[in-house]
Amino acid sequence: MTQPKSDVEIAQAHELKPIGEIAEKAGVSDAALVPYGKYMAKVDITQVPQQTPGKLVLVTGVSPTPAGEGKSTMLIGLTDALSRLGHNAMVALREPSLGPVMGIKGGAAGGGYSQVVPMENINLHFTGDFHAITSANNTLAALIDNHIQQGNELGIDPRRVTWQRCLDVNDRSLRHVVTGLGGPGNGVPTETGFTITAASEIMAILGLATDLEDLKRRLGNITIGLTYDKQPVTASQLNAEGAMAALLKETVNPNLVQTLGGTPAFIHGGPFANIAHGCNTLIATRTAMSYADIVLTEAGFGSDLGAEKFFDIKARYGDLDVAGAVIVVTIRSIKHNGGVAKDQLKEENLEALEKGIVNLERHVENVRKFGVTPVVALNHFATDTDAERAWVKEWAERFGVALEEAQVWARGGEGAEDLARTLLDNLTEDTAKQLYDPADGVENAIATIAREIYRADDVQYSPSALKDLQTLKDNGFDTLPVCISKTQYSFSDDPSQLGAPTGHTLHVRNLLPRTGAGFIVVLTGDVMTMPGLPKVPSANKIDIDADGVISGLF
Amino acid sequence: MTQPKSDVEIAQAHELKPIGEIAEKAGVSDAALVPYGKYMAKVDITQVPQQTPGKLVLVTGVSPTPAGEGKSTMLIGLTDALSRLGHNAMVALREPSLGPVMGIKGGAAGGGYSQVVPMENINLHFTGDFHAITSANNTLAALIDNHIQQGNELGIDPRRVTWQRCLDVNDRSLRHVVTGLGGPGNGVPTETGFTITAASEIMAILGLATDLEDLKRRLGNITIGLTYDKQPVTASQLNAEGAMAALLKETVNPNLVQTLGGTPAFIHGGPFANIAHGCNTLIATRTAMSYADIVLTEAGFGSDLGAEKFFDIKARYGDLDVAGAVIVVTIRSIKHNGGVAKDQLKEENLEALEKGIVNLERHVENVRKFGVTPVVALNHFATDTDAERAWVKEWAERFGVALEEAQVWARGGEGAEDLARTLLDNLTEDTAKQLYDPADGVENAIATIAREIYRADDVQYSPSALKDLQTLKDNGFDTLPVCISKTQYSFSDDPSQLGAPTGHTLHVRNLLPRTGAGFIVVLTGDVMTMPGLPKVPSANKIDIDADGVISGLF
Repeated sequence: MTQPKSDVEIAQAHELKPIGEIAEKAGVSDAALVPYGKYMAKVDITQVPQQTPGKLVLVTGVSPTPAGEGKSTMLIGLTDALSRLGHNAMVALREPSLGPVMGIKGGAAGGGYSQVVPMENINLHFTGDFHAITSANNTLAALIDNHIQQGNELGIDPRRVTWQRCLDVNDRSLRHVVTGLGGPGNGVPTETGFTITAASEIMAILGLATDLEDLKRRLGNITIGLTYDKQPVTASQLNAEGAMAALLKETVNPNLVQTLGGTPAFIHGGPFANIAHGCNTLIATRTAMSYADIVLTEAGFGSDLGAEKFFDIKARYGDLDVAGAVIVVTIRSIKHNGGVAKDQLKEENLEALEKGIVNLERHVENVRKFGVTPVVALNHFATDTDAERAWVKEWAERFGVALEEAQVWARGGEGAEDLARTLLDNLTEDTAKQLYDPADGVENAIATIAREIYRADDVQYSPSALKDLQTLKDNGFDTLPVCISKTQYSFSDDPSQLGAPTGHTLHVRNLLPRTGAGFIVVLTGDVMTMPGLPKVPSANKIDIDADGVISGLF
Repeated sequence: MTQPKSDVEIAQAHELKPIGEIAEKAGVSDAALVPYGKYMAKVDITQVPQQTPGKLVLVTGVSPTPAGEGKSTMLIGLTDALSRLGHNAMVALREPSLGPVMGIKGGAAGGGYSQVVPMENINLHFTGDFHAITSANNTLAALIDNHIQQGNELGIDPRRVTWQRCLDVNDRSLRHVVTGLGGPGNGVPTETGFTITAASEIMAILGLATDLEDLKRRLGNITIGLTYDKQPVTASQLNAEGAMAALLKETVNPNLVQTLGGTPAFIHGGPFANIAHGCNTLIATRTAMSYADIVLTEAGFGSDLGAEKFFDIKARYGDLDVAGAVIVVTIRSIKHNGGVAKDQLKEENLEALEKGIVNLERHVENVRKFGVTPVVALNHFATDTDAERAWVKEWAERFGVALEEAQVWARGGEGAEDLARTLLDNLTEDTAKQLYDPADGVENAIATIAREIYRADDVQYSPSALKDLQTLKDNGFDTLPVCISKTQYSFSDDPSQLGAPTGHTLHVRNLLPRTGAGFIVVLTGDVMTMPGLPKVPSANKIDIDADGVISGLF
């Protein structure tokens, strides 16, 4: 048996259409198109026509498992299927982050025959959005430290600067650092750290901004730390927002590429789905909706994290209506939620399905709470047995949810045509339900999500969280939406509680104002904002030959 | 009197030609052209025709002064003048660095009516080259620290890792840092620091690489530090060069833009002119020479630093022939070298000219040592008096060097036509003289440059330098060319010795192998590889309005 082709090999064997052709298909005018190479472009949002927006479908998933569910791959294949059925469909997805590409993942632009291309560029620097965010972030850091060094007129307490530097790299050595060493000419010694760029507040800001002006306003609203009098200091007090916005001038425009099926795809922004809201930019979603009849967009992790934030943060700020949802599941993930270890997932196990299906059931119920009718997309894997597939289909009928199997990795859009038809049959009127009203305060928002989505019995605040809460109230930040950072592996805040736990307590450790992005990050556990590299990083396998052909990207 | 327009206002008032038109004018085929936006492109070097190369002219300067001589502005205006006279002329220049743009300089793409455009993009992210270098640099840093963390098979001594991280920002707080704090899961505590990206070895490597394959080879040759047994460790021992080269896949291709006069300009690479060789990339110079009949390229600082390194490093590695040279001077700079303080430079002072002209004389002599006939370009400033201008012209006749005044800031190419004619009259046969043979060893190379160019009587090695020398010999690195890092303000290593000092001693403090770039950095004083921000940074003045119009770039 020959080795199956890798993602990068499949992508390289494909003949891409020039970006001008994709733009024409999408309806993007020449005036709006800003090419980056032959196969990528940015679309100037000031040139996008004001048209009746197309339907928006949210793609979410069950609680993620180490085996991977292929949510982006499913989204891409399904959109290609819609195109094949004659619909004017488009993709709106997040950009991959370079750190994980060099670390474990090796790539994040779909997989197999359901990819966005040129995958090497998209996975590496793409159009430079992450780099521009890194620059803006670190320019602000330099301006803060320079202000302190040059007289500190604002009275910023160096011990209470919360603004961190960032880099798009997996580098555990940068988590905790001391800067400003080397004597008085070299700054004030400061305990600080680096986050990965995807975890920076500027990434979250880009995700929620409506245009350049709104972006600049949000940049100015960033809280960088406290004065010696414990008063919050904003980026605008440092006159930093103009330079930062100038650095993000091109970044604000969404990126247009194509799927392997030739469908236009907007790939833009890449915030974390725990300490940020985990969706592609509002600008990309809206731009795609201006051009397409139906747009598929993704939210990170399972519905408890990504979808909740999509509705309660992104859709709220962006006034987005949604007409449908897809929940991606695999037989392996159901078995994993039924307690099967990673190395046993390939073996048939109907009992584990029976036990683990509660996870999917709860994600279906959760998505329905936002007023949309989800369709379950069963992502086919070669190890799925006929009995397992039959069991899951039988369950769906019993539970009363539309379910279709799709084979997107191996067959691309052709493998998702049935799913596409089912999705179209289940589209509803546009709706935009949110779970809570931020005006009722942060505690109410947390309690509502804990009860409705996580099914916790109780919320407990640590002493530190209670202090944070008081500070939020003192500064008038307590009526912003909340962005709960919780493990993605469980509905609870304990990653070992798989399936559909109940009766648990949500432990709030800290509340961090993200006044630029416009939400309060609620930490419920340790959150890793700077990943490390594994023993054998992907970087060791990535190579390029003399002709410029890249290998080792998955 | 109305305020004169700023550089960015002049650039914004100009109607740019689409990059396709510039490419056509330059002879760049569609297959070779990779657009980045509407007015910038990369040129795929694998698609550049093998043609008889055009003539190459090196633009250098006198010892720089705080007032600024406008070397890049002169180069751009002069090339536009050659175009106006009907020649197929092109620019080859370095890329600006974002750190100084946000710090003091505010921009570095020429000035007035002699600029390369779009200046906002060129000054900010351009086509992402600096960011790609930052990524490659910091990926290597992460791989090093991860190797140490994950068992340290190679036995790397964390105290002797010389590879630093980099960022394209002016941030003094990053000069000396401790990373890896926070316990055993967060790396090994290490004293290290960040350089600005322009000072990184990868920037120097990009500057000297001939193609992607050569780039990858050089990346693998980087020495990252020493083992516990004091053996050098290379990037290739960490399997890092493939991923780094993949990150630099597009970066290796030179960037094509236009001057305000519509002349094609290749802007590529931006290494420091002290700890690196300070020229645009060899690839850009060669690419421009393939398309043009005459190419003007710049070397950093005065002829003692930039021109020497251009001939002894860049031209040597690139097998470049040179047909002419331009030494840029201002009346202000001559007076400054004659001892006049910065705030007195606007006042007529013939005595100071008489006293300071020795600096220019020596630069003329130095350039002649490389076998080329320099032309002196007197950059006109409004404060120059008729008597001063007459004195300088009279001096040139007496000294026996061609000199022309040019008015490039205010008049663009039109203001440099006489200079262009004089340059053409003084072109010689192609030549490529180097001062020393690296095979004769590092000490001979240093002694030769000290004697011939700096006019020092003696070279003294510090105890630390002697130790470094022994290590170089032990590791077989002592037959590489040398890259001497010396103050730019004086021919000596003492910045206060203006004019044309003699009888001085060159003090060698350290010798650092740059085995990737392929030279030995010779430190003769403190070298600042991470600048700081001034009390009021340019970033505070840079702004962007809702229509995307940037202000505050100079």
